Amino acid sequence: MAASRFADCNAVLKALQPIFQEQGMTETVHNWEDHGYLATYIKKNGSFANLRIYPHGLVLLDLQSYNDHAKGREETDQLLNKVEERMKELFHGNIKKVKRLPAILRGGTIDRYWPTADGRLVEYDIDEVVYDEDSPYQNIKILHSKQFGNILILSGDVNLAESDLAYTRAIMGSGKEDYTGKEVLILGGGDGGILYEIVKLKPKMVTMVEISFENDILDNLKGECYQVLIEDCIPVLKRYAKEGRMFDYVINDLTAVPISTSPEEDSTWEFLRLILDLSMKVLKQDGKYFTQGNCINLTDALTQYEEQLSRLYCPVEFSKEIVCVPSYMELWVFYTIWKKHVEA
Amino acid sequence: MAASRFADCNAVLKALQPIFQEQGMTETVHNWEDHGYLATYIKKNGSFANLRIYPHGLVLLDLQSYNDHAKGREETDQLLNKVEERMKELFHGNIKKVKRLPAILRGGTIDRYWPTADGRLVEYDIDEVVYDEDSPYQNIKILHSKQFGNILILSGDVNLAESDLAYTRAIMGSGKEDYTGKEVLILGGGDGGILYEIVKLKPKMVTMVEISFENDILDNLKGECYQVLIEDCIPVLKRYAKEGRMFDYVINDLTAVPISTSPEEDSTWEFLRLILDLSMKVLKQDGKYFTQGNCINLTDALTQYEEQLSRLYCPVEFSKEIVCVPSYMELWVFYTIWKKHVEA
Repeated sequence: MAASRFADCNAVLKALQPIFQEQGMTETVHNWEDHGYLATYIKKNGSFANLRIYPHGLVLLDLQSYNDHAKGREETDQLLNKVEERMKELFHGNIKKVKRLPAILRGGTIDRYWPTADGRLVEYDIDEVVYDEDSPYQNIKILHSKQFGNILILSGDVNLAESDLAYTRAIMGSGKEDYTGKEVLILGGGDGGILYEIVKLKPKMVTMVEISFENDILDNLKGECYQVLIEDCIPVLKRYAKEGRMFDYVINDLTAVPISTSPEEDSTWEFLRLILDLSMKVLKQDGKYFTQGNCINLTDALTQYEEQLSRLYCPVEFSKEIVCVPSYMELWVFYTIWKKHVEA
Repeated sequence: MAASRFADCNAVLKALQPIFQEQGMTETVHNWEDHGYLATYIKKNGSFANLRIYPHGLVLLDLQSYNDHAKGREETDQLLNKVEERMKELFHGNIKKVKRLPAILRGGTIDRYWPTADGRLVEYDIDEVVYDEDSPYQNIKILHSKQFGNILILSGDVNLAESDLAYTRAIMGSGKEDYTGKEVLILGGGDGGILYEIVKLKPKMVTMVEISFENDILDNLKGECYQVLIEDCIPVLKRYAKEGRMFDYVINDLTAVPISTSPEEDSTWEFLRLILDLSMKVLKQDGKYFTQGNCINLTDALTQYEEQLSRLYCPVEFSKEIVCVPSYMELWVFYTIWKKHVEA
């Protein structure tokens, strides 16, 4: 792809045509008159090239081929080199910018593209599909990344990778909390990482409520100081609230857009508030509620979330922390929420 | 983009044609017989669509338009929805996979695509070009990222961002060193971040040797406990070695592929070894040499680097650390190198 200051669509077309003809490609040219040219070059082996020449001086070249083996890439580079040379000749080196993007691999068994929460295109170094099944609630994938290890992807959203201790650390209070002898409630936490880390810290009891049992990462559902309930957290929270069961820490690790099995909560925000209200009901007066927010760039969503906090049944205060979770490829906001101290 | 198990190229073409015709697009179809179809649909406004139908059941749809404003995106989504629906009808929902990738923005003043060291396509949330000039040695860009702050990009490689204290911390020894009253030599470090951090730690003297003065981030070239030399580090190291000047710490922050002004070092590895040898000459027996390696996925390059360490004039030992530098979007390896203790 090359952009030049002084564009002459026809001159560019004439200059580049021979390069594709040499390759024995069949040419089809469309001339918009006022919008420049589109030249399509088709090869016998099924590959083709699109040369789009814009009047303001932008030239875009897209090559598409099936089974992009090493040889194919070499040929591609040679072709692109020729195009670049020819353009530089034509404009006497007066080209504003030349840029090549890595090939995009589509349609294979391994999908390397998992856009960020703020909608950016990012390619992962995925080399293996470890697991790929639909649960009643979502699609659950475990893909192996060369650098991040296994990545859990829920309904297309990168959820957590083996490299992401930073996430677990952040949602546990960034090492500033003492869990010894404490009552802890984990909402979600399907991958089991939070449970695994807290159990090491000698808590009194950790209760994890996870609706999706598809990922069988956990060996036991019950241990000396922990239990895992395979349930929707809403009824469990309602039950605990009714029983007056209280916790020192509530850790909400539900997926960014929570999954509810009960139809009554159609709005995500209502559902979020319901979980927050119920969580505050089971949280001790001096207890803490930890949760992930969202990507730092989704400022509207974060603001809306913070508005919800002012609408709970009891007054709360909160602080937030910006954390780099390696496999996310974007900075993530984590919240700590606590009941506002009311003067006696 | 959709993939289906039982493909019938012609049936797919026939099913999707009306969608594009409704849009008043001009159609050109190429039939490979043995390689399926390429249908090109051209709109009067200069935009066009490529529909590639592969015999093994892969259907790729690429849309290209100039000035992708919000309305354009809505139209695109509607078109893609129709295609998806039509495909699902045709195959009675029996479609293996459907995937849409975010639009790729090309040819604008802001370039959002800065591939990783291991060649993956990643999009950054760039919203401003702060600086873009060619120095005698390289192209220097400062681009502003919404989440990472200003990013320094040297000859197309993401060098460092305001979010990347993790890099500075790692190349200073990850907080395990005491710089008080120490003699420190920084090779490179153009952005001044390392100098800034070390000066806070009350060293005796920090000398920074930076060849590229294009980025005027530094206010003063000389302070109470630091000096910046605008020179190629090779002659400086040779001078210090000759004078017998020794340092407690040598921090090599030269860009991944070092820049040399002297023609004698044509091979990058020779150049790397030259710097390492000269650095060891000015490093005290109990001193430490810190440097960045490369992306964790470039295992060959890292192995090759470690081989160089066994070929220095004096025996050395090393350790490495894997660090997540936020703006890199890949894990990075840092080295600590020290002179092997020789028994008297």
